[in-house]
Amino acid sequence: MNLKMMSLGKKPSVIREIFEYSNRRKAQIGAENVFDFSLGNPSIPAPKAVNDAIVSLVSEGNSVALHGYTSAAGDMAVRTKIAENIKSRFGADASAQNIYMTCGAAASLTVSLKAVCNEGDEVILLAPYFPEYDVFVENANAVSVAVCGVGNNFDLDLSALEKAISEKTAAIIINSPNNPTGNVISAEQIEALAALLKEKSKEYKKSIYIIADEPYRELTYGVEVPYIPNYYDNTIVCYSYSKSLSLPGERIGYIFVSPKCEGASDIFAAVCGAGRSLGFVCAPSLMQRVAMECDGMTADISEYDKNRRLLYDSLTEMGYTAVEPKGAFYLFVKSLEEDANAFCERAKKYELLLVPSDSFGAEGYVRISYCVAYDTIKRSLSAFKALYDEYEVK
Amino acid sequence: MNLKMMSLGKKPSVIREIFEYSNRRKAQIGAENVFDFSLGNPSIPAPKAVNDAIVSLVSEGNSVALHGYTSAAGDMAVRTKIAENIKSRFGADASAQNIYMTCGAAASLTVSLKAVCNEGDEVILLAPYFPEYDVFVENANAVSVAVCGVGNNFDLDLSALEKAISEKTAAIIINSPNNPTGNVISAEQIEALAALLKEKSKEYKKSIYIIADEPYRELTYGVEVPYIPNYYDNTIVCYSYSKSLSLPGERIGYIFVSPKCEGASDIFAAVCGAGRSLGFVCAPSLMQRVAMECDGMTADISEYDKNRRLLYDSLTEMGYTAVEPKGAFYLFVKSLEEDANAFCERAKKYELLLVPSDSFGAEGYVRISYCVAYDTIKRSLSAFKALYDEYEVK
Repeated sequence: MNLKMMSLGKKPSVIREIFEYSNRRKAQIGAENVFDFSLGNPSIPAPKAVNDAIVSLVSEGNSVALHGYTSAAGDMAVRTKIAENIKSRFGADASAQNIYMTCGAAASLTVSLKAVCNEGDEVILLAPYFPEYDVFVENANAVSVAVCGVGNNFDLDLSALEKAISEKTAAIIINSPNNPTGNVISAEQIEALAALLKEKSKEYKKSIYIIADEPYRELTYGVEVPYIPNYYDNTIVCYSYSKSLSLPGERIGYIFVSPKCEGASDIFAAVCGAGRSLGFVCAPSLMQRVAMECDGMTADISEYDKNRRLLYDSLTEMGYTAVEPKGAFYLFVKSLEEDANAFCERAKKYELLLVPSDSFGAEGYVRISYCVAYDTIKRSLSAFKALYDEYEVK
Repeated sequence: MNLKMMSLGKKPSVIREIFEYSNRRKAQIGAENVFDFSLGNPSIPAPKAVNDAIVSLVSEGNSVALHGYTSAAGDMAVRTKIAENIKSRFGADASAQNIYMTCGAAASLTVSLKAVCNEGDEVILLAPYFPEYDVFVENANAVSVAVCGVGNNFDLDLSALEKAISEKTAAIIINSPNNPTGNVISAEQIEALAALLKEKSKEYKKSIYIIADEPYRELTYGVEVPYIPNYYDNTIVCYSYSKSLSLPGERIGYIFVSPKCEGASDIFAAVCGAGRSLGFVCAPSLMQRVAMECDGMTADISEYDKNRRLLYDSLTEMGYTAVEPKGAFYLFVKSLEEDANAFCERAKKYELLLVPSDSFGAEGYVRISYCVAYDTIKRSLSAFKALYDEYEVK
């Protein structure tokens, strides 16, 4: 048996642990009395078009073709439609040959990382970051190098990045809109990063890839999210429909290998090889067709925006400091004591379940997932106030 | 970039190459004139219950819950139902805690192999075998050791197995009913193998696992398929609904870690860890519920049986030698010349597309997938006759 896999399987993620605590607590005191802000599970139903597409595909389609294997990279009509949308939405060059359908964002990442990394390579992660990145980087036999963001919004720290990039750097993962901060990286910052990566690629005579992890692309509140292939050639976009279409359990997404990558067709082949090696035969065939029908649509994200406004405005008014989220559905709030874990424990007294930032590779913050009912946020505010007051008094 | 992944992605499987040739040839001379026996893609539609379940789940269910994340091992109700079916169908001890839902057979295998193997371990494969096994074993940083079957049916060669098992052996993959031979391993053979593995485990003071790859379990023609956990404790069953329910594109299956395994809960944890590491967040959620509704059902496999009888009887009557298939939908036929590749090339003259056995780790045979229309088989018989006659004349 593989002991490393065993301990990975036994070590629940911090988020999962809070989730389990939440279930126990809800059983004790009633679900409505627990304010569980731990999980990034979309609370808004999928757009009607998703379920309509499923029913019509199943009712009208040829069952053998619909549920049969697609080619490993995905159904050609699906890939063609997605490429056309990339062209028209972002003005980026794209064709079906650049699109590889996946079982969601995690699969997009494990496949992309295995395609670009060799043993001992380094992958730069911008802290705070989604904790599973470390697991995925290790699966590619590579090593994570964390670089923390700077300023109130955890913006790119270009001078720290310059120091972190080495001859071993294979890739840097960009996640904008960001989990856990909700920040969106500006076009200026992307331009500066692209310039740095070009310079470093030249210095080390190798391609350094940007892996753009974009499950939150459509979840934004009045800002533009720069499309990275338009700024940097060696870009691989990892997309998932989980959040935009509210179907995270269905495992559907894609990898877009920008045709501007050096040796794009070789990289695409490496993506196909990595997918084959990891056991992804093809992405779920029915959901591929649903993605084709619904690409570019979103669930009704105005509800997330309402939640965001209520939570951000109320908490900052109370005296909390938080990153003002421009996208995704997370609020990143400064802990009221140095140790975010201790702060989260204290919050539990008020039935507030928050995620300490340590697991995201940054200290002194908590993540609040506001993909919950508006009413839950409303009813939680007095608890947040009481928690704040407890620290005021001390 | 990872060159190994690139070359894996560029090297199409032999079967895929024939499939591409088939498409070109069909465009040239008309689809009805090409007898493509290359792909193991079910030709019978999914049972009506599958599509009914999809429509009713989508129409009546709570969309957020239906399409939301399940726990990593799968929805508890789904796992409970499957465990109950294992108990009642096979009399094996099983509970929900032993079931891990997967994205189909390939995922079941990559996850199981990564869970049980350490770097440099050996995995025994019984030739002829499904060629992707080599890719999956390599992904687990292990090494394949092929042991060819004996006799007309490629039965287990116990003395060769005894020699092949070493202190490095982590597992042996059993695939019964077999792709490509259609053979089913008898209870007596499983008993003898279990005895050998127990002896060797004792000798080397380690657990040697049987990984039972069983996507064809329900596709049988009048024979019983022994349920391996009833014969050998350290068994991990890899199941897929692809063939039984005719939905190979939907990627749904499960891993059953027999509770009789030594340290079963540790192995189950290793399975969870491996799934997490490879990027399988959870199996597709809608299809998990479909599996719950339809577990144990099959598509109308009497059609495969009709095909099997027609093909086997006709070919053996002409003079061909073949393994009489007891399950799956493949006929394994002796090549009429030593080099099966040359034989397949010659068959192309008659528009017969067969897969040479070399890619399955055995020489001198061809695989004929009879999951095609009955009429295709009927019309192909004169081509098989002409091919046979060509060798007779020489």
